[in-house]
Amino acid sequence: MAKYMLEDKAHEECGVFGIFDRSGENTVVFDTYMALYALQHRGQDGCGIVVNDSGIMRSHKDFGLVPEVFNREHIDKLGSGQIAIGHALYGASLMQTRSNVQPMMVRHVKGQMALCTNGALMNAAGLREELELGGAIFHTITDAEVIAYMITHERLSAPSIEAAVERAAGKLRGAFSALIVSPQKLIAMRDPEGFRPLSMGKIGEDKIVFASETCAFDSIGATFVRDLLPGEIVVVDKEGERSITTHCGSRGHVCVFEYVYTARPDSVVEGMSVHKARQRAGAFLAIEHPVEADVVIGVPDSGLDAALGYAKQSGIPYGVGFIKNRYIGRTFIQPTQVQRETAVRIKLNAMAETVRGKRVIMVDDSIVRGTTSIPTVRLLREAGAKEVHMRVSSPPFMNPCYFGTDIDSKDKLIACRMSVEEIGRHIGVDSIGFLSIDSIKKIAEGAHCDFCIGCFTGQYPVEVPESIPVCKFEQKLPKTAGSGENAR
Amino acid sequence: MAKYMLEDKAHEECGVFGIFDRSGENTVVFDTYMALYALQHRGQDGCGIVVNDSGIMRSHKDFGLVPEVFNREHIDKLGSGQIAIGHALYGASLMQTRSNVQPMMVRHVKGQMALCTNGALMNAAGLREELELGGAIFHTITDAEVIAYMITHERLSAPSIEAAVERAAGKLRGAFSALIVSPQKLIAMRDPEGFRPLSMGKIGEDKIVFASETCAFDSIGATFVRDLLPGEIVVVDKEGERSITTHCGSRGHVCVFEYVYTARPDSVVEGMSVHKARQRAGAFLAIEHPVEADVVIGVPDSGLDAALGYAKQSGIPYGVGFIKNRYIGRTFIQPTQVQRETAVRIKLNAMAETVRGKRVIMVDDSIVRGTTSIPTVRLLREAGAKEVHMRVSSPPFMNPCYFGTDIDSKDKLIACRMSVEEIGRHIGVDSIGFLSIDSIKKIAEGAHCDFCIGCFTGQYPVEVPESIPVCKFEQKLPKTAGSGENAR
Amino acid sequence: MAKYMLEDKAHEECGVFGIFDRSGENTVVFDTYMALYALQHRGQDGCGIVVNDSGIMRSHKDFGLVPEVFNREHIDKLGSGQIAIGHALYGASLMQTRSNVQPMMVRHVKGQMALCTNGALMNAAGLREELELGGAIFHTITDAEVIAYMITHERLSAPSIEAAVERAAGKLRGAFSALIVSPQKLIAMRDPEGFRPLSMGKIGEDKIVFASETCAFDSIGATFVRDLLPGEIVVVDKEGERSITTHCGSRGHVCVFEYVYTARPDSVVEGMSVHKARQRAGAFLAIEHPVEADVVIGVPDSGLDAALGYAKQSGIPYGVGFIKNRYIGRTFIQPTQVQRETAVRIKLNAMAETVRGKRVIMVDDSIVRGTTSIPTVRLLREAGAKEVHMRVSSPPFMNPCYFGTDIDSKDKLIACRMSVEEIGRHIGVDSIGFLSIDSIKKIAEGAHCDFCIGCFTGQYPVEVPESIPVCKFEQKLPKTAGSGENAR
Amino acid sequence: MAKYMLEDKAHEECGVFGIFDRSGENTVVFDTYMALYALQHRGQDGCGIVVNDSGIMRSHKDFGLVPEVFNREHIDKLGSGQIAIGHALYGASLMQTRSNVQPMMVRHVKGQMALCTNGALMNAAGLREELELGGAIFHTITDAEVIAYMITHERLSAPSIEAAVERAAGKLRGAFSALIVSPQKLIAMRDPEGFRPLSMGKIGEDKIVFASETCAFDSIGATFVRDLLPGEIVVVDKEGERSITTHCGSRGHVCVFEYVYTARPDSVVEGMSVHKARQRAGAFLAIEHPVEADVVIGVPDSGLDAALGYAKQSGIPYGVGFIKNRYIGRTFIQPTQVQRETAVRIKLNAMAETVRGKRVIMVDDSIVRGTTSIPTVRLLREAGAKEVHMRVSSPPFMNPCYFGTDIDSKDKLIACRMSVEEIGRHIGVDSIGFLSIDSIKKIAEGAHCDFCIGCFTGQYPVEVPESIPVCKFEQKLPKTAGSGENAR
Repeated sequence: MAKYMLEDKAHEECGVFGIFDRSGENTVVFDTYMALYALQHRGQDGCGIVVNDSGIMRSHKDFGLVPEVFNREHIDKLGSGQIAIGHALYGASLMQTRSNVQPMMVRHVKGQMALCTNGALMNAAGLREELELGGAIFHTITDAEVIAYMITHERLSAPSIEAAVERAAGKLRGAFSALIVSPQKLIAMRDPEGFRPLSMGKIGEDKIVFASETCAFDSIGATFVRDLLPGEIVVVDKEGERSITTHCGSRGHVCVFEYVYTARPDSVVEGMSVHKARQRAGAFLAIEHPVEADVVIGVPDSGLDAALGYAKQSGIPYGVGFIKNRYIGRTFIQPTQVQRETAVRIKLNAMAETVRGKRVIMVDDSIVRGTTSIPTVRLLREAGAKEVHMRVSSPPFMNPCYFGTDIDSKDKLIACRMSVEEIGRHIGVDSIGFLSIDSIKKIAEGAHCDFCIGCFTGQYPVEVPESIPVCKFEQKLPKTAGSGENAR
Repeated sequence: MAKYMLEDKAHEECGVFGIFDRSGENTVVFDTYMALYALQHRGQDGCGIVVNDSGIMRSHKDFGLVPEVFNREHIDKLGSGQIAIGHALYGASLMQTRSNVQPMMVRHVKGQMALCTNGALMNAAGLREELELGGAIFHTITDAEVIAYMITHERLSAPSIEAAVERAAGKLRGAFSALIVSPQKLIAMRDPEGFRPLSMGKIGEDKIVFASETCAFDSIGATFVRDLLPGEIVVVDKEGERSITTHCGSRGHVCVFEYVYTARPDSVVEGMSVHKARQRAGAFLAIEHPVEADVVIGVPDSGLDAALGYAKQSGIPYGVGFIKNRYIGRTFIQPTQVQRETAVRIKLNAMAETVRGKRVIMVDDSIVRGTTSIPTVRLLREAGAKEVHMRVSSPPFMNPCYFGTDIDSKDKLIACRMSVEEIGRHIGVDSIGFLSIDSIKKIAEGAHCDFCIGCFTGQYPVEVPESIPVCKFEQKLPKTAGSGENAR
Repeated sequence: MAKYMLEDKAHEECGVFGIFDRSGENTVVFDTYMALYALQHRGQDGCGIVVNDSGIMRSHKDFGLVPEVFNREHIDKLGSGQIAIGHALYGASLMQTRSNVQPMMVRHVKGQMALCTNGALMNAAGLREELELGGAIFHTITDAEVIAYMITHERLSAPSIEAAVERAAGKLRGAFSALIVSPQKLIAMRDPEGFRPLSMGKIGEDKIVFASETCAFDSIGATFVRDLLPGEIVVVDKEGERSITTHCGSRGHVCVFEYVYTARPDSVVEGMSVHKARQRAGAFLAIEHPVEADVVIGVPDSGLDAALGYAKQSGIPYGVGFIKNRYIGRTFIQPTQVQRETAVRIKLNAMAETVRGKRVIMVDDSIVRGTTSIPTVRLLREAGAKEVHMRVSSPPFMNPCYFGTDIDSKDKLIACRMSVEEIGRHIGVDSIGFLSIDSIKKIAEGAHCDFCIGCFTGQYPVEVPESIPVCKFEQKLPKTAGSGENAR
Repeated sequence: MAKYMLEDKAHEECGVFGIFDRSGENTVVFDTYMALYALQHRGQDGCGIVVNDSGIMRSHKDFGLVPEVFNREHIDKLGSGQIAIGHALYGASLMQTRSNVQPMMVRHVKGQMALCTNGALMNAAGLREELELGGAIFHTITDAEVIAYMITHERLSAPSIEAAVERAAGKLRGAFSALIVSPQKLIAMRDPEGFRPLSMGKIGEDKIVFASETCAFDSIGATFVRDLLPGEIVVVDKEGERSITTHCGSRGHVCVFEYVYTARPDSVVEGMSVHKARQRAGAFLAIEHPVEADVVIGVPDSGLDAALGYAKQSGIPYGVGFIKNRYIGRTFIQPTQVQRETAVRIKLNAMAETVRGKRVIMVDDSIVRGTTSIPTVRLLREAGAKEVHMRVSSPPFMNPCYFGTDIDSKDKLIACRMSVEEIGRHIGVDSIGFLSIDSIKKIAEGAHCDFCIGCFTGQYPVEVPESIPVCKFEQKLPKTAGSGENAR
């Protein structure tokens, strides 16, 4: 798809936002709309809002970006209410029908329920089968529907919706941040490992908000209160907030890739600034893979912070190496005759002023297939760069993710097919260096939890179906690979 | 809504179409698309198609007319297949979300299933509650979902999908024509009373089709084979067609309003031409409510056939009394300042040439609220009609319909608030006459089944929740009511 | 284009509407919008409105039908005003760019001017060349721009806009009904032969309206005042209305095809009801081409009136022979594999009930290429018609039209390639009969002017560039052609 | 409009692109489409393309961004050709109708002509009046139409289109870069002062391209050849390129604001890198307005380069101070109840990590009304900045621009209402400093031409209608204004 044209990134699945308003100001729909803009980077394939107005729920959702899905009329029709949740979806390629766009709104024995989720359930297939053997029918292929069923089943005997959520949570495995709306309550739930971030905030004293990322709070003038504990369930109703900690215990393992690429740099995940973590990753890179050079540049937008960190650590000046065209979107008409490799120049332009005649260090946050790195490097060469040294602020991807990040299949992962040295040659750089496993563990040091780095190491914080790596290929890190004089 | 602006009709819920193609010609999507155009009059609020391509199902559906919902791209994406079903939906006002648009596509323990229905289930609420008590969740407010669940539950123990359908059918009450697609089969089901028509046809030897109305067959060059028996289930797969008649028995009672208004005049329902039935209704009207006049006109489009019948029977010349603007659609911008009663002239124009200085008999098929009759009669007066005698080719609505026709609530039904004479005065006609109960029973005489005329009489072919009429008001028919000299 | 799919008609170019409101009620935009709906049949390719609000003009126009071009927002943006004109365009195939959609709004030495036209200027090419030799540039290929230039040039020396219009009119040849808006005035102009109708009406005492057809008056509650005289110019401003009759003289020759096909049946053209003229044409047909038969049917919609006339004259019963699908529009996706001849069934369905086993007289208003007659007749045969006798309520087209009707080129006109007998065989009817030249002259007898019948006879009311017929082929009329027993 | 929500910038009018292809590769439409993406920042209100295919011209244009105006179908319909021009329009607020979107396509005595322009004609009103007195009519309010007329008039007697362009150019005053397409030729014209940049490039040997900015060349793989000389006319046809230098002479005065804000940083204007000029402006700012601080940040996107320059010059670390939401576009639904000042947080978020507890230097490129600076500064304060020192990389706007940049009217220009010190207090910063006039003259030192800095000084390179400044207020620069300890 043109949307992801020229992108070579591993994406996370989705962002969630929820609000409970006791103030009677009726801003929940608009607040959710604005928060979805702030979470748009987590999912650009679809979005939706459900509002609960005194027990009556209304919903609007569709494929597309927030500005494509919502116009004034939709916002007006959603109307006023006391509770709302919103969802930004990544992953439309798998989802042919709109029913898969969240939030999901269903009716069960106790009335209506809406929910949206973030992450990936490891035991979804098994739970689905069990439910189907009990006569269940599924309208979607989402984890959200599995979770909805699990809660509904528990609700048959549980004294309250939160009790049902608590019991259901005990049967779910994997990453499952979720927001649930019942006729009277808003419930936030985070899985016991806390794979995906989920924070609580407030606006004034009467509005409680939840979001996948704190940047959503800033966009609506909310104040950060705290992150949910791994395994915590928070229930909000007219009376106040209550925490259920039955499933808490572990210190948790938040996905380290949130710091590397997924989260917005202005978000704070588990107490650690994403921007700071990226700068640190760049600084570690500078220590692990030094090279004599004249300028450090980042590949926009996700490589910029690490480039700044690399520059500061190394003392080599930071420069603007690329200009990114902000108008190229999913509706760009890709010419059939144009090669992928030449097409990159539509989106990126090298800044000759910065790189001409220079030895350039080009920092990017990750490499998945390596496809866009080739033409990107070529742009620098054409703009007159004398040397190009690539530095990647994360280790190579070599293992599957079971928790919501869509690492490519192994036959497409470049690090499963080539050694680091071969990758450098393939991409056409004078040297290349990836961040080491040791360093990636430290980029967010000081955060309130540990990290999942399974995609790099194959070691996951929970038992996984098969812990075999995506590829057998063994990468030896962190040697800087390259043939140029400056590469050592 | 502007869409139904100036309409005063009771609408039926929906039309269905299905096709099983053994020829390998891959026309099922396009055939369904064309058939939906032919069934569009049965539902203009939404439509959809599901195609089954060797067990893989794809779906596209949305609110709107066929040309609004389907463009070339959608048709191309649905692609090829061996089985397809389509649905034209009436009733969007009740249905806020797209999930309610049919066909419904779900996954259950045995794989995927798609289905669409026509009519109204009388025991839907009860079945829903039962299912919810078993842990079921509902995404929609449709009968289709209840039926899907019933089939799925039976399928847990039934040896085949058709056996599950057969068992489920035994638990459903009311009107429930349905088409069901399993990975290998297309199944058509009609309720034991046959409230809604459902016919089988074929194209060549290798394509079997089903449709709510035979006009859909004509649109795709299919040949009518036969109507499904009330209660019959027909299973089509690669091997051929099989009939399950467990639930057959009664001669059936098809909704008489199909002949009066719902069906297209070129359709044949239970062996009886709709056009002929309408002409007959007009002829009976002429016998029951004669009046000296110069010209007989119909209110377009549904009153035209009866007007022709009245004219032929009475010997009074038939004339074109109104021109209807074909371009006024749901997107017409209704001026806020314009009165409903003056707005009718945007849609209808009286033909002065036909009515000027004449005693006019104006035939319409039914009156629900009476709202549009007032301005329509005024148009004739303004165009110079000397007298206006209204004749209605059905009896007054006085009872609820439990089987899929949305008779208005009693406080809006004009016949529940006024005597026939009062209605005539209210509408401003010189005389008025409704078709008698006796005659309505005979308009489709010769059809293969009996008729449900419960909305007129309060006598239904099956036990209904409460057989009290919508209104207590007792209409005395069939006296022609009017004060004019010509009215007797 | 799918829009004209299955159509075999000669179309007229465009409809115009104008309003001058002294009441201060600010309804001119909405009135124009509604009037365009009533004139939509005259042009479905584009439309537009210009409003003059105290000298400030605003415009909205685009390709498409009225409901496609105008939504609430557009209407609101046009806002209030005292003068408005609107245009319904036929002929987009020639017009690649939106600039060609009318009304045209320009600035000249005396300020702004908007205008729209109806018809075809015979000397447009010559005037264009003259103007270009003086340095003029043209943004469009419309006659409207030529007329705008002619008026502007005269305005340089004329004392008023109406004087400029008067002088310019003296230099224009052909059909040119036009409405012109200056900062203070609304001016209506009709060419000296009055090829195209143009009527004046009023709403109350303070609103003066002009329209191509009187049906537009009915749609907005306006009263017909009178037709403009051929050659007349009417000037409306705050003071009142004034008539300029310098160019009047001839009794005029309105296009007879307005009565046959172009105008809406509820319009009155030059004092003669279109509906009545069509019935008369049918009656003449019955006299000229009698045949023993069981039923008379019309091809919807334009053949219905003549069929009724034929039936009444002949005493053979009138029946409903076809049902037309009202939902098939320009967005219908035509299957590539479907033959044109089988595709007609998507749009039309024969009413078996009416024609089965019958000898059918099928009346249509005209035949251009004959392409759709073949499948239409086949529908009747398939529905069981025993005999099909085609009657056409106009003579064969054999000559070009210079005045705004797009008669096909001679190699496509069926009457230029075949004798009437051959046409009948080609179409597959048992007999065929066209209305005679003598009769076509009489269908609107009693109108206030004479008729242009040049497309049938090659004799035009004004000198034309080359009066040679489209084809040399000589048709001998009015013999009924056919081989069946009933054909004589 | 929401599009420019929270923007406080002076915009330039439009970007142009043209291509002549002798290779027969038929890529001109697609190349133009891609180039318009690269020029989108110069005009986001509308865009269009005209293609010349062997003398036949086709056009598509509309209000909106490139991805909104062009889809696959439009590109396909434009088809192949040898010449194409494209235009990105700024200024829709003035332009109610689509006719004002360029390129303009007209017919004149010698055939078709298309053209598009960039800049503002000073004597447009006078020329218009002259032309109107000769009978001309205007469809638009664009300079393009005036230029088209001037060329057409000269063409009546000139031996060739280029001779006509040459003669017309002699009568035009002001800024008028233009591209003109005749049936055989592509002509590029730049005004004698060269107010707006216009460059020539090539793709291979057979494709000649022209663009307002060199970044358009990079996007399509074209090589920069040279800038047009001020006053130069370049004619391209099948034979080759020819230069007409009749109007050349002055060294030219390119708009200095192109370097400050208008042009893309990766463009090279008159031999000088825009990125470099901005960094220099930042460096000069650091010299003129030093302050003790902990971090230098830029307001995205236009303040980033100058911030980097300031940081390097001052030795104070560069930091990322704001994250800009890339998804907020023109369709953002602005809440009525939200204050402009609080709304900025939807688009910008301050990076607490960077500014918390710090003395911050915030660099922006210009201040027009000062409206967005207030909430932007507030974001920094809320994020914990201890001090905020604003530095502006251009002098205050105090005079009108006659050459295509829309400086606000004086009652809205903040520098016309307040002293620099007052501005600083109004905005809420600890100190503020604008770049001096002396320094702005030097930011692009080394460029091939001189600069127009009239908007800052009131001294223009050509005589202007009235050289009085927008405001009488006299700013005393370049003192740093501020009350904080660090401000001197």
